[in-house]
Amino acid sequence: MTVSPLALPFPAISPIAGVRIGTARTGYKPARTIDDVTVIELAEGTAVAGVLTRSRCPSPEVELCAARLLGGRARGLVVNAGNSNAFTGAAGRAAAEAQGERLAERLGCPAAEIFQASTGVIGVPLPVDKALAGVDAAHAALGSGDFHAATLAIGTTDTFPKAATTAAMIGETRVTLTGIIKGSGMIAPDMATMLGFIFTDAAVDPLFLQELLTRANQRSFSCITVDGDTSTSDTVLAFATGAAGNPPLAGWHSPGADAFAAALADLCRQLAVLVVRDGEGATKLIEITVTGAADDASAHRIAMSIANSPLVKTAIAGGDANWGRVVMAVGKAGEPAERDLLSIRFGETLVAASGAVVPGYDEAPVAAHLAGDEVAIAADIGLGDGRARVWTCDLTHGYISINADYRS
Amino acid sequence: MTVSPLALPFPAISPIAGVRIGTARTGYKPARTIDDVTVIELAEGTAVAGVLTRSRCPSPEVELCAARLLGGRARGLVVNAGNSNAFTGAAGRAAAEAQGERLAERLGCPAAEIFQASTGVIGVPLPVDKALAGVDAAHAALGSGDFHAATLAIGTTDTFPKAATTAAMIGETRVTLTGIIKGSGMIAPDMATMLGFIFTDAAVDPLFLQELLTRANQRSFSCITVDGDTSTSDTVLAFATGAAGNPPLAGWHSPGADAFAAALADLCRQLAVLVVRDGEGATKLIEITVTGAADDASAHRIAMSIANSPLVKTAIAGGDANWGRVVMAVGKAGEPAERDLLSIRFGETLVAASGAVVPGYDEAPVAAHLAGDEVAIAADIGLGDGRARVWTCDLTHGYISINADYRS
Repeated sequence: MTVSPLALPFPAISPIAGVRIGTARTGYKPARTIDDVTVIELAEGTAVAGVLTRSRCPSPEVELCAARLLGGRARGLVVNAGNSNAFTGAAGRAAAEAQGERLAERLGCPAAEIFQASTGVIGVPLPVDKALAGVDAAHAALGSGDFHAATLAIGTTDTFPKAATTAAMIGETRVTLTGIIKGSGMIAPDMATMLGFIFTDAAVDPLFLQELLTRANQRSFSCITVDGDTSTSDTVLAFATGAAGNPPLAGWHSPGADAFAAALADLCRQLAVLVVRDGEGATKLIEITVTGAADDASAHRIAMSIANSPLVKTAIAGGDANWGRVVMAVGKAGEPAERDLLSIRFGETLVAASGAVVPGYDEAPVAAHLAGDEVAIAADIGLGDGRARVWTCDLTHGYISINADYRS
Repeated sequence: MTVSPLALPFPAISPIAGVRIGTARTGYKPARTIDDVTVIELAEGTAVAGVLTRSRCPSPEVELCAARLLGGRARGLVVNAGNSNAFTGAAGRAAAEAQGERLAERLGCPAAEIFQASTGVIGVPLPVDKALAGVDAAHAALGSGDFHAATLAIGTTDTFPKAATTAAMIGETRVTLTGIIKGSGMIAPDMATMLGFIFTDAAVDPLFLQELLTRANQRSFSCITVDGDTSTSDTVLAFATGAAGNPPLAGWHSPGADAFAAALADLCRQLAVLVVRDGEGATKLIEITVTGAADDASAHRIAMSIANSPLVKTAIAGGDANWGRVVMAVGKAGEPAERDLLSIRFGETLVAASGAVVPGYDEAPVAAHLAGDEVAIAADIGLGDGRARVWTCDLTHGYISINADYRS
């Protein structure tokens, strides 16, 4: 888990017109040698949308974002890595507000147009002196950074930098979407909160951008789990600078809305899967598809029951075609299901149906599938048309080591 | 995890009048050298009550028990260890029925008074020849066994035999309650289903026994979790032989009902905690108390959110006073909670309150508490009077090794 992210290849990521990036090191964690503060300046008029953790114990940064999303406009983003500032009371709230106000001053905009996120240990107030020095230094560096630098600077225990780019045609205008993300899942709030930031040069009305992001989130970030532990600080923000000059997308009736929505959904799915691939201790990506459930929501809950089952995840870690554990996870989900209608596949192979293992079941192709680093599990409930797809990773000794020994 | 259960001390367990025990080895698993079939004969007129897994994919034994509990009377119990017979279709159902009918013949009672449970790998039909030979042999041995022998014969990956005894006065009559249990939690359906059997010489009306067992279950077996994975076969049955000769308990108005209910509840709690102590890979017992929740059900869900959090459990495994993870688990539970009203204790030490760590927090006493093998975590939600107490264990490399490498 000590692989330097710098040692790994970074995908080709497009810059976005209207987005300027600067990073700096203020030293939230003395041992960290790479930059830990990121400032992003957004063109005037940039629309913003966001989805935030539903935790009842959110960080002050999450609360500030929630309030400011109502305005729909963004000029700046600041991200701190190494301290989540969560559960830090009045001191943490004051530090977050001070940092936001400082960036608003530097950018000449109201604080209501500044968005903020912090990731790292819970319970230690953001040190206000470092927060202000860091935002000043990163602001001074605006224009010198790129998405690669930002992806490194927002990371914590991530083992590789995670970003993706896509594009869409809006009428005659080609628009670009780039996203960066950090985190090893919704899993480790004191060190690996999921933060995702999406940028596009498309012109999009903020309310419509929110609708599109909410829809895309339901099929991407809401469909991944590393260990079922939802962070106090999870944040995904989408910024649309409008620099591409397309006729603004105001709703589904706008020409190009479908194409943009598809591109945004694809980008979110790519970013979400990157997080699971980098799940703490993960050696395998697991895609779980549930069909035939009573409805889509029921399918999602069954899929998450499988994805969060430690027994399923440890079996996959061991390359063990233990389909009985999938039966168990379907059975315990609390959703409509009938034992004798359930069927289960590993990869392309049907292993169980009609309440029993299939006649003449040959485990060899399943074992071969499980030996790879991408595993597909499918469960058909046999009751209705509900379907869902979620992603998780295996549960290994690496996860235990990272989380039991973190502070030692 | 290879400690022989025989090497460990067995608690002093009282026999129960009206209960005869026989065990035998039929060889469901060739490598298993100890007995794997248990037959228990119950005096005529024995009342029975039960709580069964809520899995939508239950084993045929669970289905048979559910149907037969309606009759309220039991003459015999047969338990197979090494094969759960779950998800085995018509073949497994037929084998379970044949084994039950064989025991009914031997005992000279209707099959409707035979109770059955099986634990072991999922998906392999109970081999009917071994099931019949085993029940015959164990029946032939009736009277030669005791609760110690039965506890060993029903075990699978258990590292020690688990049993408890208590007593109560019903008027002038002293009644005894003894329970045996197996399983490393509701955790590993292909090898460690939880099966619990409680015997008493008290005379109790079956409907009232069911009411008492249901109540006791809510504060005991329903309050433990090793990994949140509910088995296809979990079964707890209570048998009241009536051999003590007390005036039968027919309801709360019966003299001694309160004392018997308290004794049964205490026995269930003891048995439940034994299961968690033997959780797969466990090194520490964790007691989680939630107070101040909106209501008791809400408190239970918050407590289970903490108890099932891999991050909380790995932190305890590492002796890490990582209270931020408790904040996370409260926040994600989806129950009413307010960050700034929440307070958290480890052992006797208040660590966090009013939305932040307590002033002058000293981690030394908390670290000392976490170094022990029993850990207490308390969360006060600060909203209402709801309270709950649950038990879990830490999550260690041992759990991963057991479950990733099980079939290798």
